[in-house]
Amino acid sequence: MDTAALYHRSESEYSYLYEHGHYHIRLRTKADDVETVELLSGDPYAIDQEKWYLDGKEMKKIASTNIHDYWMIDTHEPTKRMAYGFRVIGRDGVEVFYSDQGVYPFEETFLRQMNFYFRVPYIHEIDAFKAPTWAKETIWYQIFPERFANGDPSNDPEGTLPWGSKEHPSRDDFYGGDLQGVLDHLDYLEDLGVNGLYFCPIFEASSNHKYDTIDYKEIDPDFGDKKLFKTLVEEAHKRGMRVMIDAVFNHLGIDSPQWQDILKNQENSKYKDWFYIHSFPVEDVRGLSTEELENVGRVNYDTFAFTGHMPKLNTSNPEVQDYLLDIATYWIEAFDIDAWRLDVANEVDHYFWKRFHKETTAIKEDLYILGEIWHSSQNWLNGDEFHAVMNYAFTDNIENYFFKKILSPSRLVSGLNSQLALYRRQTTEVMFNLLDSHDTARVLTKAAGNKHLVKSAMAFLYSQPGAPCIYYGTEIGLDGGEDPDCRKCMIWDEDKQDHDMLDFTKELIRFRKKYQDILIYGETEWHDIRDHEQFIGFKRQHGKEVLYFFFNQDEEEAFVPLLPYGTKKVFSLRDAMEEKETILHQNGFAVYYYVDDEEEKHERLLNKRKRARKRRLLREAIKAN
Amino acid sequence: MDTAALYHRSESEYSYLYEHGHYHIRLRTKADDVETVELLSGDPYAIDQEKWYLDGKEMKKIASTNIHDYWMIDTHEPTKRMAYGFRVIGRDGVEVFYSDQGVYPFEETFLRQMNFYFRVPYIHEIDAFKAPTWAKETIWYQIFPERFANGDPSNDPEGTLPWGSKEHPSRDDFYGGDLQGVLDHLDYLEDLGVNGLYFCPIFEASSNHKYDTIDYKEIDPDFGDKKLFKTLVEEAHKRGMRVMIDAVFNHLGIDSPQWQDILKNQENSKYKDWFYIHSFPVEDVRGLSTEELENVGRVNYDTFAFTGHMPKLNTSNPEVQDYLLDIATYWIEAFDIDAWRLDVANEVDHYFWKRFHKETTAIKEDLYILGEIWHSSQNWLNGDEFHAVMNYAFTDNIENYFFKKILSPSRLVSGLNSQLALYRRQTTEVMFNLLDSHDTARVLTKAAGNKHLVKSAMAFLYSQPGAPCIYYGTEIGLDGGEDPDCRKCMIWDEDKQDHDMLDFTKELIRFRKKYQDILIYGETEWHDIRDHEQFIGFKRQHGKEVLYFFFNQDEEEAFVPLLPYGTKKVFSLRDAMEEKETILHQNGFAVYYYVDDEEEKHERLLNKRKRARKRRLLREAIKAN
Repeated sequence: MDTAALYHRSESEYSYLYEHGHYHIRLRTKADDVETVELLSGDPYAIDQEKWYLDGKEMKKIASTNIHDYWMIDTHEPTKRMAYGFRVIGRDGVEVFYSDQGVYPFEETFLRQMNFYFRVPYIHEIDAFKAPTWAKETIWYQIFPERFANGDPSNDPEGTLPWGSKEHPSRDDFYGGDLQGVLDHLDYLEDLGVNGLYFCPIFEASSNHKYDTIDYKEIDPDFGDKKLFKTLVEEAHKRGMRVMIDAVFNHLGIDSPQWQDILKNQENSKYKDWFYIHSFPVEDVRGLSTEELENVGRVNYDTFAFTGHMPKLNTSNPEVQDYLLDIATYWIEAFDIDAWRLDVANEVDHYFWKRFHKETTAIKEDLYILGEIWHSSQNWLNGDEFHAVMNYAFTDNIENYFFKKILSPSRLVSGLNSQLALYRRQTTEVMFNLLDSHDTARVLTKAAGNKHLVKSAMAFLYSQPGAPCIYYGTEIGLDGGEDPDCRKCMIWDEDKQDHDMLDFTKELIRFRKKYQDILIYGETEWHDIRDHEQFIGFKRQHGKEVLYFFFNQDEEEAFVPLLPYGTKKVFSLRDAMEEKETILHQNGFAVYYYVDDEEEKHERLLNKRKRARKRRLLREAIKAN
Repeated sequence: MDTAALYHRSESEYSYLYEHGHYHIRLRTKADDVETVELLSGDPYAIDQEKWYLDGKEMKKIASTNIHDYWMIDTHEPTKRMAYGFRVIGRDGVEVFYSDQGVYPFEETFLRQMNFYFRVPYIHEIDAFKAPTWAKETIWYQIFPERFANGDPSNDPEGTLPWGSKEHPSRDDFYGGDLQGVLDHLDYLEDLGVNGLYFCPIFEASSNHKYDTIDYKEIDPDFGDKKLFKTLVEEAHKRGMRVMIDAVFNHLGIDSPQWQDILKNQENSKYKDWFYIHSFPVEDVRGLSTEELENVGRVNYDTFAFTGHMPKLNTSNPEVQDYLLDIATYWIEAFDIDAWRLDVANEVDHYFWKRFHKETTAIKEDLYILGEIWHSSQNWLNGDEFHAVMNYAFTDNIENYFFKKILSPSRLVSGLNSQLALYRRQTTEVMFNLLDSHDTARVLTKAAGNKHLVKSAMAFLYSQPGAPCIYYGTEIGLDGGEDPDCRKCMIWDEDKQDHDMLDFTKELIRFRKKYQDILIYGETEWHDIRDHEQFIGFKRQHGKEVLYFFFNQDEEEAFVPLLPYGTKKVFSLRDAMEEKETILHQNGFAVYYYVDDEEEKHERLLNKRKRARKRRLLREAIKAN
């Protein structure tokens, strides 16, 4: 056995309170290396009397990657205290005690040493990761306000171009999209079925994307005003939709009064310590083109990336913290928003985000806090900062399999499982899953225009744990390359919309909602992975309820395997019957529903016997007559 | 190469800001499995232009255990942002790219993917672990007040026994020790050389150990009063000694007014939510003997361990938090204490400790916060809770080697390194290291009375990173088994004190202070480990300064290896010269000091040449005459 590969970490995604009374313990081992893992656990103060280490509880292998296996147990300690270690038996028969002090032979000399054990010192609800239930059940719709709909031409900025007039929008274009446009189309969104609206920035800012804030307390006049925004939130709420807005707290725009004051007063500015300024006078980049600003290089103040028009805020300055937290609480209190999406969240300090979490959730307990982080994010997801991150690291695997075709089915599974292993289960349940956004090329373009492929990838996304998001326009077939091309105007001309894609999207959303308990809470088993046939079969089970999923990406048709009696097809694409068996054409998929009911099976069997007995009696009666 | 054993975790002890401008990155690999590790790093937004992944920086193997090797690099990023991954080359020649997305072939296809890298998103000083410098330079002295010295017989509780009258104290004994006794012996402590006093609880409580608090805002009347304590702190400060007191915040005593109110008013008590009470009426354990109270088993309220007289406090109740934090700040503000030692710290919630850290350090920036935790403690040592823990998990290795003799020299090194790998370097520098305490048998008893062995183990403890602590009486040869035997009365009768041990302890303390920069900051190299000879040789180096340490535990004498020219012996025990070489008898040790000065070596060489030239000239002159 490879003992060097064993890994466990107390008070992390390897050891956490899931829900009241359910404590999850995980262990990592080398892939295909270990036969059995048992948890040895009990009250630390009762080890001598109870010798609980002699009574291991079997752990279950819940996920595998190309390198590791992950084992889990859902346990419960009545005294709320637990000492624990692992009995690990390798496929080679080697048996060890993996403890807080390292790896030892499985012998009582070591097993009875209290100080050798990992600890759950006392289970504190206050330290647990808690996410709002509604966030698990949400299907998000991302709106880039300047490009969704122009509902009020009177607020169009100077130089506004006709809606959709360019095949490929440029970096500086304005098309007049606004909040009235969103309000006008709330019925459309309700009909689509989404129940969460995620708005890219709406505060006063200079650019079309509004990530260079001027004033966090004003709605950008190109988009409308506060009264309109209030109406919009109310109308969304009436339709059962939650509203998430974008907080760009990593940096300010150079047109903000604070930065203007810096430029004017230099080291005498009262905002001197609001930024990271290396020397005075501060370089003045006003007047540069958008293109130049985006790649200004190293200037004498810290910026977001190398963008000159976005000076980084010093969030360790208590004045800046108070300023931003006043904004964060203001939009919750005055406008009843339900969620904050935090831009460039990883580059702002933890100290600030902990304050942010505490002060915002104090006002609205079920607020959802979503950080923009593209890499592993454990340190922001311990319960006292964010509830979720933009889950690119997870969903990129889907893109790499379906669109880029650089992964085999088993490497796709491996990639997804690696990501799932990074977080607590309740975190995964509210993760923000997406195939595209204002920061990436659009899904239809990634799929090189293959709509079946887009549908397959979407269906796969919706089959996974985490809340899916639709980037505006995907549902009617909008395409686009990298930014700024992915920010095309929404198509409202019904003749130009892709109605087939729209219908598919609606069906997918209905499917997600109908089976949400399985899709949120269900465990996943990848039971039919065929690397050489580009075929993926898996099931998700929650209690007795099971969904079977099959995806075929191969040019060759593929047979769906035989399923238990009583299974019914609930959703599919490009499937057909061939000699009583179901086949999937390329990019086809099929989803089946089944109730794995032992009682029902038993009853069915009894009925069968009853019927058989009845038949026998009947036959005998016939004979006798 | 064993890729399953590779481990790195962002924003943890594997990736942290050490001091301004110094960022440490570590990697774990399987022991003896990897030839070279390089860090590939640069600004995440400059990857395309700079292709910094083509220019790896070599990492150094800093520690090994029986299972793993640990690699480190001290790096610096001018933009305060860093993306990084690892180039790992196995001894088998296999070369991989270990990334945030897993293990990949070392190929540019993967290397150029920005999303594959681990991240230091932005280095924030506010999130860094910072410990007070004084805590690194402290030699602690632990005082159990009831047993240190009786300075004021007028405050002796009823039934006080004559000082030291029992060979083995019982659980309920009182001997009259008090704060006046400590004050009277401050000169003794100053002469000993210690510069930090750690007091077991001094607040009003029922038992002799005072862990069952009645009133956190009063000095126990058996010990003195607030005026006396204030004088004691002031006098200690005058002598350059810091003062640490013990906060027992996990539980209260049953004689506290709060618990009395519970017993009286049951569910109508205003303190109902201050505890974890399962049902009413609450079981009344008053009247039980101390022995019975210590092992009362499962009662209908949560307790510390299974001790009936210590009901657990509900620290998630804001009222309880405010109550305890008022106490925590009071003793700092009114008495100028320098440190808090937190009893049963692991069983109190993190939320509370984060508030504790914030509110106490706001008053006294260089406060030292020490938690009592016996197991791996990463989650309390991230910079926003404690500075250190009672380092039993580290020092137990010393006990297991020197006293229990269950480890080989190389397993000792392995155990020490496993523990060091758990924490940031600056945490290790302020760790609280100890060989015994009021919770363990005494070191002389552990060593079965072998005083040479005690001295060796003490010298070894002082050679390691972390601040050492002496448990009162060790310096004059006090012995004792497990609690309550380890709480004997201090011996003040000079005829009964062990003066040889006292002199040794003073010399050891002088040694630690004189070479503290090497002992705090020096890197350790275990260059001469001889398992079959029970011989340990290592060096610690800080800059040009080096200390060589050699310990012999074998019955056979051992030779100290040849050391560089210019090395001088600075401290030793049971060593002798044999034919111009140094030997160590059993339990002997020797410490040498050396300046590894390349310049000086160069100069010495030049001088040698000059002298040679002079001699040649002289010879030629002689010849010529």
